[in-house]
Amino acid sequence: MRPGEASMESEAPAGFSEKLAGSAHRRQSLRLWLRLFSCATVVEKRIRNWLESEFGTTLPRFDALAAVERRRDGMTMSELSGAMMVSNGNATGIVARLVEDGLLVRTPDPEDARVTAVRLSPKGRAAFARMAAAHAQWIDEMFTDLTEDEVGELLRLLKKLRLSVEAHGTSP
Amino acid sequence: MRPGEASMESEAPAGFSEKLAGSAHRRQSLRLWLRLFSCATVVEKRIRNWLESEFGTTLPRFDALAAVERRRDGMTMSELSGAMMVSNGNATGIVARLVEDGLLVRTPDPEDARVTAVRLSPKGRAAFARMAAAHAQWIDEMFTDLTEDEVGELLRLLKKLRLSVEAHGTSP
Repeated sequence: MRPGEASMESEAPAGFSEKLAGSAHRRQSLRLWLRLFSCATVVEKRIRNWLESEFGTTLPRFDALAAVERRRDGMTMSELSGAMMVSNGNATGIVARLVEDGLLVRTPDPEDARVTAVRLSPKGRAAFARMAAAHAQWIDEMFTDLTEDEVGELLRLLKKLRLSVEAHGTSP
Repeated sequence: MRPGEASMESEAPAGFSEKLAGSAHRRQSLRLWLRLFSCATVVEKRIRNWLESEFGTTLPRFDALAAVERRRDGMTMSELSGAMMVSNGNATGIVARLVEDGLLVRTPDPEDARVTAVRLSPKGRAAFARMAAAHAQWIDEMFTDLTEDEVGELLRLLKKLRLSVEAHGTSP
């Protein structure tokens, strides 16, 4: 185990060890998954902490504003629930609070007047713009030791990984 | 946007778009974070689903067994809570259920008789061995389109990313 390795694997999903894996290929795949997961976890944790300390907000609230921000003409609750799936947020409750706080406003859905959609208020738009700029800057700062080429290579390899998962990950 | 890109970004944390980011460097960092997060999310979701469908268990239960498996002489509850942090699991409740199910047994902590530790029962060890083998195989299968070199390169670059985050991610 090289220096730094212990700390790097310590936030992997609990106590996996390389001996669990039989073949060399399998061992490398498992190591890759643990490292990928630990990278995503540590970055997400910092973003959650900073959203709280810098803006007094949560990742699900930020995610909701980000999803609505892309849709100037409003977004229905079911669309928003779908977009927020990964945050494990209760979209209805989160939206209700954002409306109370004046960041979102309810609006008739342009496609179906019986459906309520939400959009950003001017206050919500301004608040989100500040948070999104800070969020982008935090990430840029965290990744600063990677060269442009390395970022590009990671983008390429992670895309290939994602496509592999989609092609081979439909059933065990 | 290239083919496949929309689907790949669709599980990113809600509705980020490239226009949020100013400079080219910052845009690439944000894209990398969204892609990293979406890769980790999609793999984790599949593992959760398969643990449920193939073994009728959950990721926090699997994580708890994996953490305990590494410690033949037992693991205290506080050690286990730390190891399971990323699963957002309630370690106490999960362990109580695993004891009820006969997969874990309570044992005196070798270092301090006043502290209770847990270890795998023979049944728990056998069950975990089956799950861990399947888990490694699922991951190997999902990543199968990556060459050995690409897996190695991802391991290297993600390690560099992790070290960058640790060096620059202590405060916003």
